[in-house]
Amino acid sequence: MECLPAKGPVSPHLPFGDQRSAPFYGKDILSVKQFTREDLEYIFGVAHEMREMVARVGSFDLLKGKIMASLFYEPSTRTSSSFLSAMKRLGGDVIPINEVRYSSVSKGESLPDTVRTLECYVDVIVLRHPEVGASALAARYARKPVINAGDGVGEHPTQALLDLFTIIEELGRVQGLTVTMLGDLKYGRTVHSLAYLLSLYGVKINFVSPEILKMPADILSQIEEKEITGAEFTDLDQALPETDVLYVTRVQKERFEDIAEYEIVKNAYTITPETLKAAKEQMIIMHPLPRVGEISIAVDDDPRAAYFRQMEYGLYVRMALLAMVLGKA
Amino acid sequence: MECLPAKGPVSPHLPFGDQRSAPFYGKDILSVKQFTREDLEYIFGVAHEMREMVARVGSFDLLKGKIMASLFYEPSTRTSSSFLSAMKRLGGDVIPINEVRYSSVSKGESLPDTVRTLECYVDVIVLRHPEVGASALAARYARKPVINAGDGVGEHPTQALLDLFTIIEELGRVQGLTVTMLGDLKYGRTVHSLAYLLSLYGVKINFVSPEILKMPADILSQIEEKEITGAEFTDLDQALPETDVLYVTRVQKERFEDIAEYEIVKNAYTITPETLKAAKEQMIIMHPLPRVGEISIAVDDDPRAAYFRQMEYGLYVRMALLAMVLGKA
Amino acid sequence: MECLPAKGPVSPHLPFGDQRSAPFYGKDILSVKQFTREDLEYIFGVAHEMREMVARVGSFDLLKGKIMASLFYEPSTRTSSSFLSAMKRLGGDVIPINEVRYSSVSKGESLPDTVRTLECYVDVIVLRHPEVGASALAARYARKPVINAGDGVGEHPTQALLDLFTIIEELGRVQGLTVTMLGDLKYGRTVHSLAYLLSLYGVKINFVSPEILKMPADILSQIEEKEITGAEFTDLDQALPETDVLYVTRVQKERFEDIAEYEIVKNAYTITPETLKAAKEQMIIMHPLPRVGEISIAVDDDPRAAYFRQMEYGLYVRMALLAMVLGKA
Repeated sequence: MECLPAKGPVSPHLPFGDQRSAPFYGKDILSVKQFTREDLEYIFGVAHEMREMVARVGSFDLLKGKIMASLFYEPSTRTSSSFLSAMKRLGGDVIPINEVRYSSVSKGESLPDTVRTLECYVDVIVLRHPEVGASALAARYARKPVINAGDGVGEHPTQALLDLFTIIEELGRVQGLTVTMLGDLKYGRTVHSLAYLLSLYGVKINFVSPEILKMPADILSQIEEKEITGAEFTDLDQALPETDVLYVTRVQKERFEDIAEYEIVKNAYTITPETLKAAKEQMIIMHPLPRVGEISIAVDDDPRAAYFRQMEYGLYVRMALLAMVLGKA
Repeated sequence: MECLPAKGPVSPHLPFGDQRSAPFYGKDILSVKQFTREDLEYIFGVAHEMREMVARVGSFDLLKGKIMASLFYEPSTRTSSSFLSAMKRLGGDVIPINEVRYSSVSKGESLPDTVRTLECYVDVIVLRHPEVGASALAARYARKPVINAGDGVGEHPTQALLDLFTIIEELGRVQGLTVTMLGDLKYGRTVHSLAYLLSLYGVKINFVSPEILKMPADILSQIEEKEITGAEFTDLDQALPETDVLYVTRVQKERFEDIAEYEIVKNAYTITPETLKAAKEQMIIMHPLPRVGEISIAVDDDPRAAYFRQMEYGLYVRMALLAMVLGKA
Repeated sequence: MECLPAKGPVSPHLPFGDQRSAPFYGKDILSVKQFTREDLEYIFGVAHEMREMVARVGSFDLLKGKIMASLFYEPSTRTSSSFLSAMKRLGGDVIPINEVRYSSVSKGESLPDTVRTLECYVDVIVLRHPEVGASALAARYARKPVINAGDGVGEHPTQALLDLFTIIEELGRVQGLTVTMLGDLKYGRTVHSLAYLLSLYGVKINFVSPEILKMPADILSQIEEKEITGAEFTDLDQALPETDVLYVTRVQKERFEDIAEYEIVKNAYTITPETLKAAKEQMIIMHPLPRVGEISIAVDDDPRAAYFRQMEYGLYVRMALLAMVLGKA
């Protein structure tokens, strides 16, 4: 006997019983590195269909009867709300487990045991965990698909996918664009993962950061192996005019030993209506949110401000991934 | 591109595409002051239909596919459970966000940013917040309807609506009744809002409170402008015999400098079977709950005890409001 | 007027309006002592059907429109997830109330008042509470069915039912089996309740525990009145070879004054692949989980390891109970 129908190679319920017809069925979503460019195109195609369906009918019953566990070992309202909405707009349901700190974990239970118990009740597990590699560990033991919703400083693959999907939906393509990443490029897993995905396309990336928060060398060398051009700056001024996508991240005070240096960087990197005068009219501004002053609220009404729309694109990407791993896309 | 279908003047899906046919469609519910007596009659008509539908079928699919965010910056089990049940009995679904203290807010995100993110995932936002004016602020930025579920010492309009609906359903009318409010009339937003709504009808209100917890002068003058008669008492004895609705609230020890004075008030204002001997047979006793001794549990079995039924009427009022702002009533 | 359709003797919607056709309709599930052997057979029959339905279709709409309150005064991820999944796989919905410590309870509300409010919104209440007798108290006031999901050191009847159902589904019968309970038999409510249920069948029970953690005399005498044979051991070696069901529980360090004694017991009672060499090939190993070392993870791949499957059987038992008390089984 086994815990409910498990993740397997191909579902007998799929129209053709063919691996290619459901390439992610039963698979885990753990890292951006698992995707080829072909995979990305497939995912974004499904996500685009989700967008059209939501615009037309709001919700529909593709995953009716399916249950997702939302297992969050640390809080992330934004990510969990997005996954909950994704599952519910597909007609599925959710078991939210947000207080893991108070639960059996505090009685000393291992992550594999928690996952092996939970999967008896659900069809897919979305896991947020403060430790790098937690999702991979969970996936090793789970018979149901595991989706990594962030594992510490490790990965947050659905964030990177939604970032890329935002670019495609807003600008119609990725190939040939100039993407400028601004802020803390050293510690931000978001920009690391996005840089990797962009490297699968022919793009130019500008890295704009203070000296102490530069993109790590190993990530630079990884992407330089691919078909991309990279350039590093400390000032935004030089990079901005040619930029198609300005990806802003927060610079945290705690990273600086010298507060005066932080203040300089903070002011230089704040996006205001003034900043945008030097930018292209078709440029988009992205931000993983929450923002705390990196982008002036006076920018919010500029049509180039794409960061709230970015949240919505996240919904469609997560709908696509859930449908795919459950064999329904 | 915009965050999912937004709140707008009139839905194309409505039968007549006529503003009057869905007067609250896309609107925010922020304050009791936004309602005319005609509005109240419309709301209570819908709420009464909800009551009949629930009695007949329990739940139904009026809001199938719609998602409500329950965004609670402070806990309120009673109010959130009532809204959750209202949405679910209408076939809709809910994203509950109860741990706001741990979430992106603690990373410094503003309420407008939180709301603008959330509305990408949902169709309506129910907001509980400790600060006066929070709901109005949220509504200014949100494109989806916002329902105020209590903003600090400000307003809690759905509580006042359910209070009035309770009176109508229990006694068949409001016009001509004598309503006696008992307890802490100074700090209770519940009685302030209810007094305002009652002032739209021809009623008599008795205010019974200790000297230091009297109804504030500005609220008294507001309601005196309308067609009501008010009278202030410190003893319940004088007001009770003519009372049709006895609205009991808690008197908190912390309000008193002199504990002896508190003890006197507490004893004088506790409702017991003995108290009720002087009351009308058709009187109803209401309380916003939770109670802590203001009403003896020996009163619970008296048919005049309406406070648990009052909770149920709240369900119907919230069902009505959700259906209305989503254009389905 | 009453809080929504209440628990009553027999539903008019039942096919025959006959008490026997829905023996648990509207009933509370409070204690294993409320069940006859006939009752158990009925419950397990329904649970087995639930298992087959889930295997076939995953979820179905038996309880569509019904709402369960999951009222947890203390956290229990495992139990609450299981009940949530059970309700959702039956097409029903849930109002989860997990933060009771922050809510109106902390304003001093009594359990009866909380329950009488909640039942206005829901159809069934699942209650977890740290105090013995809390469920019985809640059920005395509630007009809707109450299911005890654990009340302190009192009872956890659905755990005992799922334990017994696991044995039946795994081994095909209970009658004639030898069940060995290992570990802390003094403080474990799980083994106390299971021992009671087993006593309704003709079984042999071996109790293996350190001297200071023996099964309490009153429970031994209770079960000795029934048709069972019991024997006490301090070593597993003697009891293991004849065992059909090995029920392992955790031995907590805190129970021991002498740490050296704890270490000896801990080592002697840890189940490893080595231990299992002396066991029957068809034996099953059970554990209420979470485990913390009592069973080596090297045992997990042994087909006799039934503890994760046990979690899944719990789902079916809870589905059965929910359907039954709501008059749909």
